[in-house]
Amino acid sequence: MESTDQLGLSIAFQEAQDGYKEGGIPIGAALVWVRDGVADVLASGRNLRLQKSSATLHGETSALENAGRLPAEVYRECTLYTTLSPCSMCSGAILLYKIPRVVIGENANFRGEEELLRSRGVDVLVVDDEACKMLMARFIKEKPQEWYEDIGEMH
Amino acid sequence: MESTDQLGLSIAFQEAQDGYKEGGIPIGAALVWVRDGVADVLASGRNLRLQKSSATLHGETSALENAGRLPAEVYRECTLYTTLSPCSMCSGAILLYKIPRVVIGENANFRGEEELLRSRGVDVLVVDDEACKMLMARFIKEKPQEWYEDIGEMH
Repeated sequence: MESTDQLGLSIAFQEAQDGYKEGGIPIGAALVWVRDGVADVLASGRNLRLQKSSATLHGETSALENAGRLPAEVYRECTLYTTLSPCSMCSGAILLYKIPRVVIGENANFRGEEELLRSRGVDVLVVDDEACKMLMARFIKEKPQEWYEDIGEMH
Repeated sequence: MESTDQLGLSIAFQEAQDGYKEGGIPIGAALVWVRDGVADVLASGRNLRLQKSSATLHGETSALENAGRLPAEVYRECTLYTTLSPCSMCSGAILLYKIPRVVIGENANFRGEEELLRSRGVDVLVVDDEACKMLMARFIKEKPQEWYEDIGEMH
């Protein structure tokens, strides 16, 4: 990984850890604007299902929401970092805003729409990060019902 | 259209109209739970990009957010009504929660991921509603920049 990727993923992971400490689902994300080799962290966010009874604030959508309104041009120079493979909704948000690159901490605990993203031209990198994997696996073991609710699955 | 569909779409259109009156992007949605022929309006919502500087609260995601946390089983008996063809993000939310049916007011002003939804087994009905078409066309003419921002397009 490049240093910008390490930075982006570390911010996403910090969000996931903060979410876990709050009793939430530990998935975090960060939106980073890369221009001429300079990285600008626009926003980060974390899954807020349990904290806010939210059905739409996943890690990735939280980061996008926290970034506020942005012109289309900005998204097209961004990388979205996320600790876990993005679900259909978050992948759809990536496609809506034409974010060209997604760096994913891990896809061992959940595999989202990576193939759809790739088929639409998004550069998808899966890092297979041990810390992301362990934190998510721990949560799923502790609160399986909340996890399955988050991905629309019956438990 | 069945009477439940007329009810669902009329609630979505009311949200769109309320959004327009607030100066917002006039797209509305409603989530309706249908059990044994009985319709239960769980929530409705509207696009809040301009009102809340929101990048993720489209009509459909607003309705889902307003419905709060729901078990997976409920979504699987719902119909989502929306005044405009759902974008990638909102279509992804429909897929995430496995909502089996979507009724769309119109797709003349914007055509979202209807084919993706159908390819995943979602029952998609496009009503081609004149009132939905006229309200959206009026907004796009009045505020094209805000509209293109909402769909991640450059203007």
